[in-house]
Amino acid sequence: MESVTSIAREVREAIFSNLPPNAEITKIDFEGPKIAIYTRRPQIFLENDGELIKRIAKTIRKRVIVRGDETSRLDEKTASEIINSLIPKETGLKNIYFNESIGEVEIELLYPERVEQAILTRIFVETLWYPRVLRRPPVVSRSVREIREIYHAEVENRRRFLRDLGDRVYRKPIFKTDRVRIAALGAFQEVGRSAILVQTPETNILLDAGLKPTGNSDELPMFDLPEFDVDSLDAVVVTHAHLDHIGALPLLFKYGYKGPVYMTEPTLHLAKLLFEDYIKVSEKEGKPLLFSTREISSVILHTYTLNYGEVTDIAPEVRLTLYRAGHILGSALVHLHIGEGLINLVYTGDLKFARTMLLDPAHTKFPRAEVLIVESTYGSKNDILPSEEEARLELAKIILETIEKKGIVLIPVLAVGRAQEVLLAILDLIRNKIIPPVPIFIEGMIDEVSAVHMTFPEYLSLTVRNQVYNDQNPFTSENIHVYRGENKEEVTSTRPAIVLATSGMLTGGPVLEYLKILADDPNSSLVFVSYQVEGTLGRKILQGLRKLTFSNEGGKTITKDLKMGVYRVEGFSGHSDRRQLEAFLRRMEPTPRTVILNHGEKNKIEEFRSYLLSDWFRKKTRLSFNVLAPQNAESVRIV
Amino acid sequence: MESVTSIAREVREAIFSNLPPNAEITKIDFEGPKIAIYTRRPQIFLENDGELIKRIAKTIRKRVIVRGDETSRLDEKTASEIINSLIPKETGLKNIYFNESIGEVEIELLYPERVEQAILTRIFVETLWYPRVLRRPPVVSRSVREIREIYHAEVENRRRFLRDLGDRVYRKPIFKTDRVRIAALGAFQEVGRSAILVQTPETNILLDAGLKPTGNSDELPMFDLPEFDVDSLDAVVVTHAHLDHIGALPLLFKYGYKGPVYMTEPTLHLAKLLFEDYIKVSEKEGKPLLFSTREISSVILHTYTLNYGEVTDIAPEVRLTLYRAGHILGSALVHLHIGEGLINLVYTGDLKFARTMLLDPAHTKFPRAEVLIVESTYGSKNDILPSEEEARLELAKIILETIEKKGIVLIPVLAVGRAQEVLLAILDLIRNKIIPPVPIFIEGMIDEVSAVHMTFPEYLSLTVRNQVYNDQNPFTSENIHVYRGENKEEVTSTRPAIVLATSGMLTGGPVLEYLKILADDPNSSLVFVSYQVEGTLGRKILQGLRKLTFSNEGGKTITKDLKMGVYRVEGFSGHSDRRQLEAFLRRMEPTPRTVILNHGEKNKIEEFRSYLLSDWFRKKTRLSFNVLAPQNAESVRIV
Repeated sequence: MESVTSIAREVREAIFSNLPPNAEITKIDFEGPKIAIYTRRPQIFLENDGELIKRIAKTIRKRVIVRGDETSRLDEKTASEIINSLIPKETGLKNIYFNESIGEVEIELLYPERVEQAILTRIFVETLWYPRVLRRPPVVSRSVREIREIYHAEVENRRRFLRDLGDRVYRKPIFKTDRVRIAALGAFQEVGRSAILVQTPETNILLDAGLKPTGNSDELPMFDLPEFDVDSLDAVVVTHAHLDHIGALPLLFKYGYKGPVYMTEPTLHLAKLLFEDYIKVSEKEGKPLLFSTREISSVILHTYTLNYGEVTDIAPEVRLTLYRAGHILGSALVHLHIGEGLINLVYTGDLKFARTMLLDPAHTKFPRAEVLIVESTYGSKNDILPSEEEARLELAKIILETIEKKGIVLIPVLAVGRAQEVLLAILDLIRNKIIPPVPIFIEGMIDEVSAVHMTFPEYLSLTVRNQVYNDQNPFTSENIHVYRGENKEEVTSTRPAIVLATSGMLTGGPVLEYLKILADDPNSSLVFVSYQVEGTLGRKILQGLRKLTFSNEGGKTITKDLKMGVYRVEGFSGHSDRRQLEAFLRRMEPTPRTVILNHGEKNKIEEFRSYLLSDWFRKKTRLSFNVLAPQNAESVRIV
Repeated sequence: MESVTSIAREVREAIFSNLPPNAEITKIDFEGPKIAIYTRRPQIFLENDGELIKRIAKTIRKRVIVRGDETSRLDEKTASEIINSLIPKETGLKNIYFNESIGEVEIELLYPERVEQAILTRIFVETLWYPRVLRRPPVVSRSVREIREIYHAEVENRRRFLRDLGDRVYRKPIFKTDRVRIAALGAFQEVGRSAILVQTPETNILLDAGLKPTGNSDELPMFDLPEFDVDSLDAVVVTHAHLDHIGALPLLFKYGYKGPVYMTEPTLHLAKLLFEDYIKVSEKEGKPLLFSTREISSVILHTYTLNYGEVTDIAPEVRLTLYRAGHILGSALVHLHIGEGLINLVYTGDLKFARTMLLDPAHTKFPRAEVLIVESTYGSKNDILPSEEEARLELAKIILETIEKKGIVLIPVLAVGRAQEVLLAILDLIRNKIIPPVPIFIEGMIDEVSAVHMTFPEYLSLTVRNQVYNDQNPFTSENIHVYRGENKEEVTSTRPAIVLATSGMLTGGPVLEYLKILADDPNSSLVFVSYQVEGTLGRKILQGLRKLTFSNEGGKTITKDLKMGVYRVEGFSGHSDRRQLEAFLRRMEPTPRTVILNHGEKNKIEEFRSYLLSDWFRKKTRLSFNVLAPQNAESVRIV
């Protein structure tokens, strides 16, 4: 029984003591934080609704997965035939891939929601290959395909990684966890470079690893603080795929990190896209590269994806659960249970506590939660944003006025999230005939992100999810034109038109090329739909900057007056406004005793803090938190 | 010109550019943070009140010391004769020692205050040996003698240490100092194990390294925090010689520290005594030893003593000055100037802002001071202590009552500070005939500490200082009996009597042996005169404990009822009471903008913090601080 030795004796004994004599176990192995039991007779484990698995899991207090014994599995050809015969036609079977290393068979379907569990169980029992169903997106997604290819190519490395991960997660702790601190590495009293180090005497966990999109020396989190040591990190957890939360992740691998990264599956797919786009844009603009494709592959290889609500051991005394955050596809709230009942921490990442066309609002119920780290982007009392409905109408007005002047509506967008929300909004305006069917130009990057959305409909709002299930892709309207060329004048010569382009804060990317062409055109409009971080060009324009400088093809600097109409339409924000933040705090169950504010500019944080401590708030809500607002490079104890 | 290479080129050039042609420099070397200039003609540097030295020091912004060229110095015999002939008889010349390594001659005098500077200058110019005057204490002090012997034996190691120190202090900084943090390693929201780490991106400085006198696992400062790295420490600064501030200092050397420790000269002498006593007591009581005599020698060898008010570079961007703290002999406030005008920090250590018989009150004027870390032992609003005068009379009453019953007055004392204050008080009561001349028993340790006081009269109050200058040793009264034996019954059979014994909180030491004998004697009295840290036996008795357990000679446990009268006389405290703390804050110039509270129990800190933030305090004093009260293991930014 190979490799059983790496599993603690008590776990092995607990498993065997629960087994009937006919279980025919041939191997027990770590598969990340799960215990994989290899057997010749999986049916023993699956009968009575998997009662035996549940019993074992309960005894050893670990998650258990059953695998088919290697020598007993059917050959791939026979197994394929059985799978082909069992899987119903209407599910759209596209591909079968056998992962010999762990005995898993990936079955790629167009409509995985149409396949029943009983069929999968039958496949497992008859072939001894454990079936894993993947969705083949309706639009070709390079990202989805490549990630699957990477895992196929790295099957053995991946298995080794997962085994080592289990070894490390279930190590015997050396220190007693009687205190926990939060070290603020980034995005405290600022927006950008989100990074929080959670430290116990035994364990170090990094929550988010972002870049600040200003391009200055404060771009990186404070990885130079003495309490941060990449070699001592047990885990990195990332909340969502925006560069200010994941941009520094590949760098950790450059610095020698070899441990796991936990996130949702959509986040992984979007992250890969963003990383590649970051490299592409940086190269094009001649900026120094912080990482290369090599580190992107490392991130993928070391990622362990989790569904919302799935409780996972990530260190000897820490359990992680991700919950829906409502911000973008796959965005998560992080819940950490630390020290066997010692304390529970919720970190919101970026939070939207309102329903949007694309997503459901953030989750609010937790088993326990004494401490909350909450984003405060819109923490000031004036940060009351219009509703998405109002925003849609405001946008309609700007579009109509611009159409009248035969201008271009240029909307800088984050490729992930805002682009899709705004696209849905514009399509809705067209469908309801509030605006005429004006052509909408997007780039390949945005189209690719939309394809990822179609791959994970379970993470979308009910309406959009049902559209996907019913083969109505909301992002393949005839009004949308994907422009993949270099000569942006090909686009801007079509008038009127709407152009969505990245980056969302004008810090780089194709939007700058559009802006260079359109800047001095008084008939065109520049519409900001997302938060503009301090120091970015977007923020400067909002603050009144009207002389723009661009570099020519020859590298020369040219100056242009900004004559476009400049607008700010705020209701599309993926962030909660002040009212939604307050609503989240009031709805959260249980009520935390300590609230730590981050991800907000200094003055917003200060205002929000004063508000939460005010008699007014306390009387109105009957909530009385201890409110902390640390600075970067500070550490606070939460227990 | 050996070793000049280790001095930065610009320093060398600045020195040479200031020199007249006849200066005859033969060597330039680091001597700790000072630049030592070796010359054949020291008179060039000394004339016009040392104008040349001052000019050089001003140009290079470093302290300069002039030394005689090695080959030009007179031989020791001839030099001795000249010194003997020049030094006046009434100064009481006792010894001459030649330190060849740096060309210094130590002249030990009974009355160094009686020798004029002009004579010392003449000795230097005539012999080329630089004279350093030391005091020979009137009572034999083993400690003073041994420290001098250690330095004599280690002359070469010491020179190497000082040269390396200079090299390190004046290194070219790698990082920009644009932020400074305070990491709380010990004595935050508690009393004991004082330790504060001051961190800039370039430099790490530890302020105090104490032990908590409870003997539990929280005895040591949190040296296990990831931001503490003994190999990255630039300097350790200690405020005063009490174990809760210096007890962990030898341990740092056990852990591999090789850098400097800054303190006053009396602190060094008292520290050596305390360390040795700690080993002696621990051995006797069979407790595990945290360090050995080897580490004590390391402390001595690596100590660089400073006078009050002497400004010294201790890192490329940090300057240290010690000021009088009024707490015990040699106790200091620490002033750090960080980052060329970036910020100034004052740390009080233990603070007495009132005149006592022994000491002058704490210093209050600083060139700049934006941040103050202040001890808060008596920070609660009820912590109003009686004056020393009142305390003296209260003590007299207890003594008189006990004398009447022919009992023993047992006073647990910290050997350093409280013992001397209480001795002076009792002698004063006898002199003024308020109490009869009852015998006072002290131990050798306390007597040795008193001898150290006599060695450094400049650090004492004017009255006591003048007594020493006038050959009236206040601590050698005929009423004081030093008992060095083991059989404490020899002492307790003399009745009535007063016994002063360590430790001051009944955590060990001879006081426990006296207590074992006297516990069930209702005619005797137990009088606490100093602060009792939570968890100590002293604190427990004050809280009502009356069943005491002792171990017998056979190792057996015996139980005794405490029938002695238990008293607490608080006016002898070396700490400021609440009123004195407030007075210090009001007097301090300039007013700090941030006040960080430490060295106080959680509830006292909380009360003091609320008070300083209250409208009442703000209106009354017109002071409005930012008040922080971090916990151990937290880090706060001060800039």
